[in-house]
Amino acid sequence: MRKILVIGAGKSTAVLIKYLQDKSVSEKLHITIGDISIANAHKLVKNHENTRAITLDIFNPSSRRDAIQKADIVVSMLPARLHIEVAKDSLQLGKSMVTASYVSEEMRALDQKAKDKGLIFMNEIGVDPGIDHMSAMKVIDEIRDKGGKVILFESFTGGLVAPESDTNLWNYKFTWNPRNVVVAGQGSAAEFLQEGTYKYIPYHKLFRRTEFLEIDGYGRFEAYANRNSLAYKEVYGLNDVLTLYRGTMRRVGFSKAWNIFVQLGMTADDYTLANSEHMSYRDFINSFLAYSPTDSVELKLRHYLKIDQDDLMWDKLLDLDIFNPDKKVGIPNATPAQILQKILMDRWSLDKGDKDMIVMYHKFGYELDGERRQIDATMVSIGEDQTYTAMAKTVGLPVAMATLKILNHEITTPGVQIPIQKEVYGPILEELESYGIVFKEKERDYLGYNPDVVIG
Amino acid sequence: MRKILVIGAGKSTAVLIKYLQDKSVSEKLHITIGDISIANAHKLVKNHENTRAITLDIFNPSSRRDAIQKADIVVSMLPARLHIEVAKDSLQLGKSMVTASYVSEEMRALDQKAKDKGLIFMNEIGVDPGIDHMSAMKVIDEIRDKGGKVILFESFTGGLVAPESDTNLWNYKFTWNPRNVVVAGQGSAAEFLQEGTYKYIPYHKLFRRTEFLEIDGYGRFEAYANRNSLAYKEVYGLNDVLTLYRGTMRRVGFSKAWNIFVQLGMTADDYTLANSEHMSYRDFINSFLAYSPTDSVELKLRHYLKIDQDDLMWDKLLDLDIFNPDKKVGIPNATPAQILQKILMDRWSLDKGDKDMIVMYHKFGYELDGERRQIDATMVSIGEDQTYTAMAKTVGLPVAMATLKILNHEITTPGVQIPIQKEVYGPILEELESYGIVFKEKERDYLGYNPDVVIG
Repeated sequence: MRKILVIGAGKSTAVLIKYLQDKSVSEKLHITIGDISIANAHKLVKNHENTRAITLDIFNPSSRRDAIQKADIVVSMLPARLHIEVAKDSLQLGKSMVTASYVSEEMRALDQKAKDKGLIFMNEIGVDPGIDHMSAMKVIDEIRDKGGKVILFESFTGGLVAPESDTNLWNYKFTWNPRNVVVAGQGSAAEFLQEGTYKYIPYHKLFRRTEFLEIDGYGRFEAYANRNSLAYKEVYGLNDVLTLYRGTMRRVGFSKAWNIFVQLGMTADDYTLANSEHMSYRDFINSFLAYSPTDSVELKLRHYLKIDQDDLMWDKLLDLDIFNPDKKVGIPNATPAQILQKILMDRWSLDKGDKDMIVMYHKFGYELDGERRQIDATMVSIGEDQTYTAMAKTVGLPVAMATLKILNHEITTPGVQIPIQKEVYGPILEELESYGIVFKEKERDYLGYNPDVVIG
Repeated sequence: MRKILVIGAGKSTAVLIKYLQDKSVSEKLHITIGDISIANAHKLVKNHENTRAITLDIFNPSSRRDAIQKADIVVSMLPARLHIEVAKDSLQLGKSMVTASYVSEEMRALDQKAKDKGLIFMNEIGVDPGIDHMSAMKVIDEIRDKGGKVILFESFTGGLVAPESDTNLWNYKFTWNPRNVVVAGQGSAAEFLQEGTYKYIPYHKLFRRTEFLEIDGYGRFEAYANRNSLAYKEVYGLNDVLTLYRGTMRRVGFSKAWNIFVQLGMTADDYTLANSEHMSYRDFINSFLAYSPTDSVELKLRHYLKIDQDDLMWDKLLDLDIFNPDKKVGIPNATPAQILQKILMDRWSLDKGDKDMIVMYHKFGYELDGERRQIDATMVSIGEDQTYTAMAKTVGLPVAMATLKILNHEITTPGVQIPIQKEVYGPILEELESYGIVFKEKERDYLGYNPDVVIG
């Protein structure tokens, strides 16, 4: 039996465990699930004979090292900041390791030592980062293999609600960490390249500079810029690229309405509001509007942000019940972002039967034989229920597959890795197809970066 | 002879030195000017018999302590962050001290020790902070002495160009540190109180929420909110205040045009632009606009920010020559704010004969005998030339006066102080009048916070 230690029994671990359990007989796998809460770990065991649960306190070095020592490979599904201790122990005890998180500076620093010991520390192999890396590098490598030169790469990912569960005016529900959604895009300007020119969008304009995207059978989406597009030039080796843009997908109209919160200052997370606990939702919105002895909060807001009476954004606000003078915030010393999150969770939480959806859209522009051409690749994954969500599948499956392929010596390059090598993305993308995670590629005329799809 | 050590021969030291020299015979003063550059110090001596210049390197403890030891009182005109070493030495060597800067945490921590030794560490006695404290506390104390209760305090200060030197479309020139003007207002939201309600304005809306103010003989001004209004509740003991607002004054129309830079992201100082050195002014503005193979930078900007063709803001932009494709930025690894500062300095630097102007406007609302009333107090100071500027006078004179009054035991309260005590502001405000720094007070109907003067 090969022994796999999975640390952290969180949301996306269920799919990962099920994959490994399903292969446990044919592949001779024994799975140990370690979590600070043994109850959480037990839930995932489901009386499977080759799986056991253990209590594992990541802050207890001896319990951590003991569990890692007994494993042949380690999967860390912990929050990103906690991987490093697992990685250091794994290095010392000679175990390979898999995570779905971005490579931290500390993790990167282990590269040479991992190589020296022939260990594989595979990271960024979930979804954004993960499936986006793999599906992009597949097409980029194919273009290069044909002798082509990639001049445009745009890549968009969205975690959304499935069409059948899309029941509010925002066409959005929280399918993952709500806090990340509320503060998304904050910090210094988003930077990207458009036809050779560096472009910068400050946070307060991010949601007004969206692009439109169409996916066959799923209709229209929009995307706002991620902050870190330029880093991908080096990661993917895109030396000739003229356009480099990564974005986050939403249904059309979301960003224009979300911009109301940004403009008012409701997404700020760097100061707290006086008396927040006893504020009503209406008081909250009024704290960002000028005082008036007579004018209503509604009219002040319409005037301030120039919202016409027939603008659909208004109905989106009403849908959140944000003008309610009786609903209380109830959080002491809250930042605007914390209060906004609470208001949104009233309406954007998934109902029992709701399903989520992951969408991805890549555009590849390239030159081949003196001609410019374009390939668009799209993927849609819909969740089955609230355990086997699209998010849990697209994170958990590639992690599980990479783990097994490392055990089976199908993935062999040692060091701190991300899945941009053919030996990794080739077989994993192929296997993901049998789980319904399929990229549809389409040749189309090269359009370059098209300003017609940009809103003012 | 009483020996005064003035450390730092910067812009506002000239007026301070002249005041002390003019009093040196009658008051038996000997003045030592210490600066890292003895040439700078010498310029201020002007062959005056009771003044000498010394080289003083603030980072050299023995040179610093030696100079302080020989003095009876120390004036620090250094940049704010450098006062603390002077303060520690002064405390140890038993000397009182005067600065025009905000009290730092480190300075505040010396309070008890200064009191124990009977020393006075007077701070915030220039202009904003300084003359604003004194003129406000005078009226506040008068209202209290009559048995009144202050319910509204609004206070506005501006460092502007004098009407006779007001020659550009922005009605603005740099009369002090340009960098502070470019990044003004950044950070977390401006917080203030309006009729009992806490209000918050995020940076990207700050220049669209101005108030208008009128000063007899000087016309109309506007003001945008400072970030720290709420702190003044405690500082001035305004326990019953319903409206508390501090702002920065500009000529009307400045903020609306400045908002263009804020909206584009040109005031950001937290990242650098690629290839900034070789960028033209036109490239700079284009980095904040979407790519287009055909549309002009001008049209893209007008469309993005919805600027009508007859909007005067546009002429303000043209006045800066910001669309010039030939003028180069010439600064490597520059932040947007650094580039914007350079562009502005081309047009906003003072010409040889230009004069500056300091304006101040306080509103005091109060209840007395069951009636609500209001006092407005205004002050305008115009510079004489580019040495005896309004800024140098309003900073240097109160510092010099406080220094002499401490020497003469007219100011006696020991500890780390700001000028909010009657023994300080009373005689200094009176003396300032003989130097043309006069507050005009006017009784008026109580208006409260008036939303009609707020722009949307």
